[in-house]
Amino acid sequence: MRATVEAAREQVAALLGTRPRQLVFTSGGTEAVNAAIWGATRARPGRPTVLADVEHSSVRDASARAGSTVRLEVDRLGRIDPAAVRDALEKADHDGRPAGLVHCQWANHEVGTIQPVREVVEVCHRHDAWVHVDACAAAGHIEIGLDELGADLVSVSAHKFGGPPGMGALVLRRGLRVEPLLVGGEQERARRGGLENVPGIIGFGAAAAALTEPGRLAQEQADARRRTDAIVAAATAVHDVEVLGDRASKVPHLACVTVGGVEAEPVLLGLDQAGISAHSGSSCASESLAPSPVLEAMGVDADHSLRLSVGWSSTDDDVEAFARAFPRVVTELRALRS
Amino acid sequence: MRATVEAAREQVAALLGTRPRQLVFTSGGTEAVNAAIWGATRARPGRPTVLADVEHSSVRDASARAGSTVRLEVDRLGRIDPAAVRDALEKADHDGRPAGLVHCQWANHEVGTIQPVREVVEVCHRHDAWVHVDACAAAGHIEIGLDELGADLVSVSAHKFGGPPGMGALVLRRGLRVEPLLVGGEQERARRGGLENVPGIIGFGAAAAALTEPGRLAQEQADARRRTDAIVAAATAVHDVEVLGDRASKVPHLACVTVGGVEAEPVLLGLDQAGISAHSGSSCASESLAPSPVLEAMGVDADHSLRLSVGWSSTDDDVEAFARAFPRVVTELRALRS
Repeated sequence: MRATVEAAREQVAALLGTRPRQLVFTSGGTEAVNAAIWGATRARPGRPTVLADVEHSSVRDASARAGSTVRLEVDRLGRIDPAAVRDALEKADHDGRPAGLVHCQWANHEVGTIQPVREVVEVCHRHDAWVHVDACAAAGHIEIGLDELGADLVSVSAHKFGGPPGMGALVLRRGLRVEPLLVGGEQERARRGGLENVPGIIGFGAAAAALTEPGRLAQEQADARRRTDAIVAAATAVHDVEVLGDRASKVPHLACVTVGGVEAEPVLLGLDQAGISAHSGSSCASESLAPSPVLEAMGVDADHSLRLSVGWSSTDDDVEAFARAFPRVVTELRALRS
Repeated sequence: MRATVEAAREQVAALLGTRPRQLVFTSGGTEAVNAAIWGATRARPGRPTVLADVEHSSVRDASARAGSTVRLEVDRLGRIDPAAVRDALEKADHDGRPAGLVHCQWANHEVGTIQPVREVVEVCHRHDAWVHVDACAAAGHIEIGLDELGADLVSVSAHKFGGPPGMGALVLRRGLRVEPLLVGGEQERARRGGLENVPGIIGFGAAAAALTEPGRLAQEQADARRRTDAIVAAATAVHDVEVLGDRASKVPHLACVTVGGVEAEPVLLGLDQAGISAHSGSSCASESLAPSPVLEAMGVDADHSLRLSVGWSSTDDDVEAFARAFPRVVTELRALRS
């Protein structure tokens, strides 16, 4: 069983471009994020954390309770600006309260915008700030080389690229040791207590191995891009529907549109009746319809926006079903309102 | 999917004698314990925690870092004494630092001793102390009625009674709200962030449902008792081998013996060669051979002790294999030393 777990660790590490021993298996991206923030803020107590509101709610909520935070502005595409990070770190140094941790997601989980992670890591390390990269929306969808990136802490989620739910990993920079969030037992080299979820770990490894096969990630990307492009084309063919996020640099499987004149919720209901699941609100909060803080941070209308994603199980038929249903649903809702 | 998760929640709640909405699914017993301690100590900051060294390492380690602790003595059977709890709480009240939390495991995870949980809960509530009951070694092995018990926080683990690894639950007293350990998302009624591990939850529910069938738990108990009795009889037939823990009141699936004159590790190796897995050290720390703090607290020789357990997949043939191998292994090791 030990050998099976370690074989899976090698598979996941190969996908992520890191060494197996840097990888700590967790119960998901959310635990990985919480553990990263716990470890970093316990190691550097009293030092503020720098982050933008486009980060996932786990990053925002865990940071808010761990200590003081400094907020980064983003532009209308949801992009974090390395120069803004530099300015925030310089100001913190100048104020005599140097930042301990900076968050920079690899890609945004709602609109798909890819962030300038390399530049941000470089800026942070010049100021002795650790960097946590939430790679949950990027891992398994674009090439990510973690050893090359050099971030201190990276979070990934298995289910986001075809692995099982309830699995994720925290990747620690070589040589970095932080206090575990879950204590009680020496598992995972004393970095995470609790019996290993062996079936989950095997599934995580298998999904990673599939994506490491030659040409497979490129093929998945091409399929996802073709499908989200078709979804966006069908959506924006309707009057007063616009795409959000950075179309020039985004993960291939996500798209977000804003629909003028109708709220997101009835559109979702109409799509659901046509057998299509889309999302509004914060994408990962299954019981919440609160407006997305990501979209608010971008200065766009969160109440009228839908997140549309494709995955390894999506088909061209699904895309065609969307292309048929979306214009009808929006037209009917607009007719009701006028 | 929502309905599937809620059906499983009902199955687990039925086994535990509580209402489904009091149950928060976690990634295992360890996360449940860590979350219980986090929630209780954040709700009652600055107040000490009372516990005995026979508690699981997750309870001891998470309590130690959450604030000050008061240590309870146990007897040679590993029993927590409600009068000692009362004395500790009275002293804490008298010192003007009333205890916020008391831990009382339902059954010990190494020697199987069942603790006087009802009496401890009663004493604690007279002193306004919350009680956390680690029921990981008891749930699914003996009848446990949580609503009747009235503890504030209870931790359970799925894999300990045939459910999947990577699953557990934290059960909250009716009306109790505590701050979640894992934040980011409104899942589990905003009590635990992160996508639900749906396959794990379904497996947890199925294992609980099997044990809730009429007569099934009694049958499992009778089978386990017969097997551990046979294991103990075979072990104690060897000269200078003694049983540890409370034989009059213990969970049926666990037994712990101490072997005079030979250390546990070579005995484990010898048994392993005969196809039998037993444990020394802390039972749940897969990478540790450190002496068990449980046995040290009981004042017995931790270096010479083995934990022997049976589960739903154990057979009478396994027991016979142990009965054949154990005397041979011990005799050979003793011969080497003389």
